[in-house]
Amino acid sequence: MVSDGISSESLFCFLEECRRRDICWDHILSSMCTPPHQVAVRAHNLFMETNLGDPGLFPGTAHVDELLIRWFGDLYHAPDAGGCSTSGGTESNIQVLRFTKAAKKSDHPNIIVPASAHFSFEKACRMMGIEMRVAPLDGQYRMDIPKTAELVDKDTCCLIGIAGTTEYGMTDPIPALGKLAEEEDIHLHVDAAFGGLVLPFLKDAPQFDFKVSGVGSISVDPHKMGMSTIPSGVLMVRDEACFCNLLVDTPYLTVKQSYSLSGTRPGASVAGAYAVLAHFGKDGMEAIVAGCMENTRRLTEGMEAYGVKRKITPDVNVATFEHTEVPEPWAVSYTRSGDLRIVCMPHVHRDVIEKFLSEFGEFHDRSSN
Amino acid sequence: MVSDGISSESLFCFLEECRRRDICWDHILSSMCTPPHQVAVRAHNLFMETNLGDPGLFPGTAHVDELLIRWFGDLYHAPDAGGCSTSGGTESNIQVLRFTKAAKKSDHPNIIVPASAHFSFEKACRMMGIEMRVAPLDGQYRMDIPKTAELVDKDTCCLIGIAGTTEYGMTDPIPALGKLAEEEDIHLHVDAAFGGLVLPFLKDAPQFDFKVSGVGSISVDPHKMGMSTIPSGVLMVRDEACFCNLLVDTPYLTVKQSYSLSGTRPGASVAGAYAVLAHFGKDGMEAIVAGCMENTRRLTEGMEAYGVKRKITPDVNVATFEHTEVPEPWAVSYTRSGDLRIVCMPHVHRDVIEKFLSEFGEFHDRSSN
Repeated sequence: MVSDGISSESLFCFLEECRRRDICWDHILSSMCTPPHQVAVRAHNLFMETNLGDPGLFPGTAHVDELLIRWFGDLYHAPDAGGCSTSGGTESNIQVLRFTKAAKKSDHPNIIVPASAHFSFEKACRMMGIEMRVAPLDGQYRMDIPKTAELVDKDTCCLIGIAGTTEYGMTDPIPALGKLAEEEDIHLHVDAAFGGLVLPFLKDAPQFDFKVSGVGSISVDPHKMGMSTIPSGVLMVRDEACFCNLLVDTPYLTVKQSYSLSGTRPGASVAGAYAVLAHFGKDGMEAIVAGCMENTRRLTEGMEAYGVKRKITPDVNVATFEHTEVPEPWAVSYTRSGDLRIVCMPHVHRDVIEKFLSEFGEFHDRSSN
Repeated sequence: MVSDGISSESLFCFLEECRRRDICWDHILSSMCTPPHQVAVRAHNLFMETNLGDPGLFPGTAHVDELLIRWFGDLYHAPDAGGCSTSGGTESNIQVLRFTKAAKKSDHPNIIVPASAHFSFEKACRMMGIEMRVAPLDGQYRMDIPKTAELVDKDTCCLIGIAGTTEYGMTDPIPALGKLAEEEDIHLHVDAAFGGLVLPFLKDAPQFDFKVSGVGSISVDPHKMGMSTIPSGVLMVRDEACFCNLLVDTPYLTVKQSYSLSGTRPGASVAGAYAVLAHFGKDGMEAIVAGCMENTRRLTEGMEAYGVKRKITPDVNVATFEHTEVPEPWAVSYTRSGDLRIVCMPHVHRDVIEKFLSEFGEFHDRSSN
């Protein structure tokens, strides 16, 4: 296999066949990703050759990176916030654990996450020798604050709240968490990987951003609701000095120190993320998010018309139902408790919802008889 | 800035202007990256919408990922080796530290790296609470094995050797390190981020791969000499069971467990990497590497003709010289000791070398007078 090359004609014939074996997006109801918007793809290609690991070679790309951070600073009501682009939620959360652990200087550091936290925290804590304390949820799938407070001790370096949980689409009580964080002088990180590009565009959404005075950092993934190319994550910090604990010397690069986790990293997906957000603006994003929320409502009511009960009315476009099977070839997912979970991403258009409901209805009737 | 959207016409006008501010590749002599080959870009675009973080949705893409691992297994003389694609050298090295630390179960784990090791090891060790012991180099910028042996103790979980060092392009004595690793029963990881796609294509190159019985894992970055799109790294392990220590449960995905560090991750750059390597094959890569090595020789002789001495004759296409300034707008770099460093990547064609030598000559004459 290794020796001889393959003509590009045969190669792409083969690669196209592989690609056809992937499930089509119009049947994917389980993913928090979505096909990137054409503006993202165009920007991605324009910046394909760039490497933000060596920003002095790419000052124009570095400027776009800076604009992306400024965009989120404005969106999250802290124009002076610091930030960095990452490969996604896992890397963003690792960065937070790195600097909060370094700042605490405890021999037995711990963090407190809600039971709804993404599995990346388990991975990061195990890797970094941090104890992960899990706070239970209340009846609304939200972090229970009194029980969270009981878990805090002098070795707690970080509290984590979620804005738009992966499983049930709920947002933890961030203002109450912020109050606890301030009282106890602990860093509060908000994992808004999903909700960070949903909640700001909704009326009467729960508060989660830097308007809440105790919030120290927020992570958000443009490759989810930002319709950008993978990999695209952003970590925003209220005080840029957070990053000082992460600096290492970077000889033979055009910058002398760096705080990113990755070395070489793509400018392409950073440009893709910025392009989508700049193109749509807040008004355009509001329209997209409104559509996703409307589809979530329609799906929920449609399922309930078949007698399948919702688990909760979510804060974001993640619908959950009591366990039920769905017909092939729809790709859905199930929560740890076995509830049906459907994410109404931008590619899940209204006609997709109607098609799913219609096919589900027939299947459900057959199964019931 | 956040409120109103921008038309795509104005947006791309602006983004193109940003891109023009980046330094042109034909003047970049300092980078271990290179513009991706057109085959990589085409494959990248074909797989742009895929997410290997949820491989059950993308079985065709996951197959290409598997083929990439198999390609490197064959290349490194261990067809049954396990492996995983990563975002690059830093993530690959972190993965190795994760599983070797977990396997050792020491309260005070340490690793031994050569003084030439990439700064990502410092970052990873600090993050993971691992002591980093630094072995000195011999007169040829290679890891000193007797002195390495003196640093080993019962808490040493990993030895690191480099194949193609970032600064001087040298390869550590991997067979001797392998012997030490076997005697002491310690995992040996070879960081071949750069050399892993150079050394296999050279005659009489130093041994570094699984042919050396003590080698437990090898990392290589297709986004360097593999002319692929960023981010593209690969970690190969002799025994796939290494990864068992990294597994976490991944509810609501199409796979139930995962050992990758990232969650969502691009299929696009994996396909890009596979496309280039499959297209060129071993023979094609030999030709490209031969050209880069020939240019390295030409550059070295050209500089010496001006009286600028080489520091060492490198194993790979990284040329170093005693400190000297170079004219604008050439982007070169300097090692930690201040030596001039030029990487003869595939984009540094022979005419680029000649142009640089000619402009350097004029500049050097003026500076000397």
